[in-house]
Amino acid sequence: MNLPKRLALAAACAALCCSLLAPAAAQRRRGRAERVDLLVSGGTVVTMDAARRVIEDGAVAVRGGRVVAVGRRAELARRYAAAEVVDAAGRAVIPGLINGHTHIPMVLFRGLADDLDLNEWLTKYIFPAEAKNVTEEFVRVGTRLGLAEMIRGGTTTYCDMYYFEDAVAEETARAGVRGLLGETVIDFPVADNKTWAEAMRYTEGYLRKWRGHPLVTPAVAPHAPYTVSEEHLREVRKLSDSLNAAVVIHLSETRKEVEDISKQKGARPVEYLARIGFLGPRTVAAHTVHIDEGEIGLLKQHGVGSVHNPESNMKLASGVAPVPAMLRAGVALGLGTDGAASNNDLSMWEAMDAAAKLHKLSSNDPRVVPAEDALAMATIGGARALHMERDIGSLEPGKRADLVVVDLDELHQTPRYNIYSHLVYATKAGDVRTVVIEGRVVMRDRRLLTLDEALVKRQARDFRDRIARSLKQ
Amino acid sequence: MNLPKRLALAAACAALCCSLLAPAAAQRRRGRAERVDLLVSGGTVVTMDAARRVIEDGAVAVRGGRVVAVGRRAELARRYAAAEVVDAAGRAVIPGLINGHTHIPMVLFRGLADDLDLNEWLTKYIFPAEAKNVTEEFVRVGTRLGLAEMIRGGTTTYCDMYYFEDAVAEETARAGVRGLLGETVIDFPVADNKTWAEAMRYTEGYLRKWRGHPLVTPAVAPHAPYTVSEEHLREVRKLSDSLNAAVVIHLSETRKEVEDISKQKGARPVEYLARIGFLGPRTVAAHTVHIDEGEIGLLKQHGVGSVHNPESNMKLASGVAPVPAMLRAGVALGLGTDGAASNNDLSMWEAMDAAAKLHKLSSNDPRVVPAEDALAMATIGGARALHMERDIGSLEPGKRADLVVVDLDELHQTPRYNIYSHLVYATKAGDVRTVVIEGRVVMRDRRLLTLDEALVKRQARDFRDRIARSLKQ
Repeated sequence: MNLPKRLALAAACAALCCSLLAPAAAQRRRGRAERVDLLVSGGTVVTMDAARRVIEDGAVAVRGGRVVAVGRRAELARRYAAAEVVDAAGRAVIPGLINGHTHIPMVLFRGLADDLDLNEWLTKYIFPAEAKNVTEEFVRVGTRLGLAEMIRGGTTTYCDMYYFEDAVAEETARAGVRGLLGETVIDFPVADNKTWAEAMRYTEGYLRKWRGHPLVTPAVAPHAPYTVSEEHLREVRKLSDSLNAAVVIHLSETRKEVEDISKQKGARPVEYLARIGFLGPRTVAAHTVHIDEGEIGLLKQHGVGSVHNPESNMKLASGVAPVPAMLRAGVALGLGTDGAASNNDLSMWEAMDAAAKLHKLSSNDPRVVPAEDALAMATIGGARALHMERDIGSLEPGKRADLVVVDLDELHQTPRYNIYSHLVYATKAGDVRTVVIEGRVVMRDRRLLTLDEALVKRQARDFRDRIARSLKQ
Repeated sequence: MNLPKRLALAAACAALCCSLLAPAAAQRRRGRAERVDLLVSGGTVVTMDAARRVIEDGAVAVRGGRVVAVGRRAELARRYAAAEVVDAAGRAVIPGLINGHTHIPMVLFRGLADDLDLNEWLTKYIFPAEAKNVTEEFVRVGTRLGLAEMIRGGTTTYCDMYYFEDAVAEETARAGVRGLLGETVIDFPVADNKTWAEAMRYTEGYLRKWRGHPLVTPAVAPHAPYTVSEEHLREVRKLSDSLNAAVVIHLSETRKEVEDISKQKGARPVEYLARIGFLGPRTVAAHTVHIDEGEIGLLKQHGVGSVHNPESNMKLASGVAPVPAMLRAGVALGLGTDGAASNNDLSMWEAMDAAAKLHKLSSNDPRVVPAEDALAMATIGGARALHMERDIGSLEPGKRADLVVVDLDELHQTPRYNIYSHLVYATKAGDVRTVVIEGRVVMRDRRLLTLDEALVKRQARDFRDRIARSLKQ
């Protein structure tokens, strides 16, 4: 059975879940265990649910790609007979991390050009490197490399913006990773589409092709308010409405953007997008660095999700997003790494650590963005920001079974006092041991099961040589 | 032969080095290779010397604990016959990292108390935890844990400030790690000494005991200008002069310190220390966050080394040290992690990444603190800050053989373009493969050779339980 069919069957199973509960209870009364596909057993289960339950010696039962129960290990062991068991004793079990903003194929540009003036970085390196190298094959190779790195680091869902996004989606589905994947549209010719009309045709086809897929949620991603015209932004919103598709956009990343839009439109970027009817409950805005109180209110009012990228904002000297104020206002706020050309990795562990530390400094208050809030931004907050909180972001019955087993007793993690501090300030991507997405084990004991790591690296190195040569021409 | 004797012999061998050069040349003419103890062979040798030479397919030859040659692999293979070879092909060979400021036994408090108001953090957690738990045994167990973590992360030299520093020194020498180790003296009773007189007696004995040791450089560490009186600071300077010992101090870490000292002394902290004759070419000042242009000039003028701790300064909301201005002024500037109670790890890789990113943001200029400068702060800059640049900080003939072999081709490091970017922005502590200190391999292929990792962790966990209980009483 191929993957789409298996996943369709999984979804059907999940739908039957409620109706199965009564017979299951009867079964238990007769002393017979209910069958599940997977039991993640033992360890500290950090649910990130509304009550922020942390269950010591806990377990998570999974059937049909969804969580059916979260509780004490001893209880779940009595209730469920599992086809597959992942032993998590002495480890943490957390919701899969959500990387709210990246450009996955750009891992192939990791370290290509750093420490430069932004204009020089873009016009002398990134744009020429893209113009000369970005093909569908580049995108596939880069996506596989990025997926492998993300799985290794416990990221189970990511939000992407790039070109040839249909190829990104195919690679992502094949690797068993969840993605909100946005095809980038922009007012100048790019690698995959040379005109706006072409880009919109491609995007509509892409949105229709992937609608309802269990792992890939297709989206349209207008690059930014300063690179896509008002008319085109309105058109994007219309397309999003007609197909109920998410819209991902860069928003208020730099001071220059705010100045330019203010001059051109007589309004700050978020105000401008609100005025033209662009903002809505399917919008995901990356960065929102330079926004004022009024704009924070607009994000909240329109149900826009925001994604904070502390490391990219630091490295590119973009500025400090008003994270504490957004959290206070109740804006759905996630966390991202941004592309590896501006970070230079895809580790959500470093993103959490940076977010927690940056806002303490910036607020002059060490109590700001405590570890628990940082983990929330990387899990349930990210789910809300991507408008996927019904399905992911916490370990609760009924949600998709995306979870991560993390070592807790490495040298740099010794000793351990508080689980949130431990995860955010001491744990690294390399401590992730086992990763489950949609109930499927995609990494077990640090071995990738859906990607050939040696091949992924070899192909990436081949592209690196081509890219380096292309910039010398 | 025990370690001190072996090291004394090593020093003697090194002294003979020059006189051996002529016979060695003769030997070569006769086609016979010169004998060395260790050849680190192959890989990209990042020397961090004045010319910033990077040698592809390079090698480093080591004899008597010192570097005797750095060059091309093929050439060194012809010239030297090595008793031991470390294969570094496809990897980087860099100078050992220098952690310029920490409180090593505080790893036992890692994650004990985070995200708190500073006063609450100190008075409700750190001070009571220290008062109830810090014994010589605590210090030994914590030091071993910290040493293991530092070796794993490629740190070969560290500068410490804590109590029972003689025990820290013994553990450090035993593990084969290099340290500038400062006994903390302060104007109130602490774990090891109950009065100032007692503390000074202990310190003088400690300084005399370790003088001339090849690995341990003993120092006196008055806690800070606001916790040690003017009279006592003068006394410390006198002791330092009489024994030619380094002095380590916290300086201008917080706004409050600057306000308090300004009120009490009518001068900013660095000005005050200069006025009382405390500053000198053996002084190491940790933090120097809140210093003005005049104070930067005083640091330079008096030859004071400064150590920047970006992660601690962020997490405790201390502020942003004027790193670009200090670099411009030519202040000897190193990099540190601070104690694990305020970071929460001892990774110099994260310190480099944070330093590079923080100052871009803070200067609103992405060109500030480029990767090469960040690596310099963690190597040759740190050596200068600790006044040890004649011995460590770069890979050059005559210097102590402290070097680290680092993997370059892990997934999160793929692909590779620029070696400095690669090391600072993509490489993690977990990528460190082999560590050599004073010519001795202390970690080979990620296996610690001078510490029993399982025992170190077990003993740390035992202390953790005692510490947690003590805070509940």
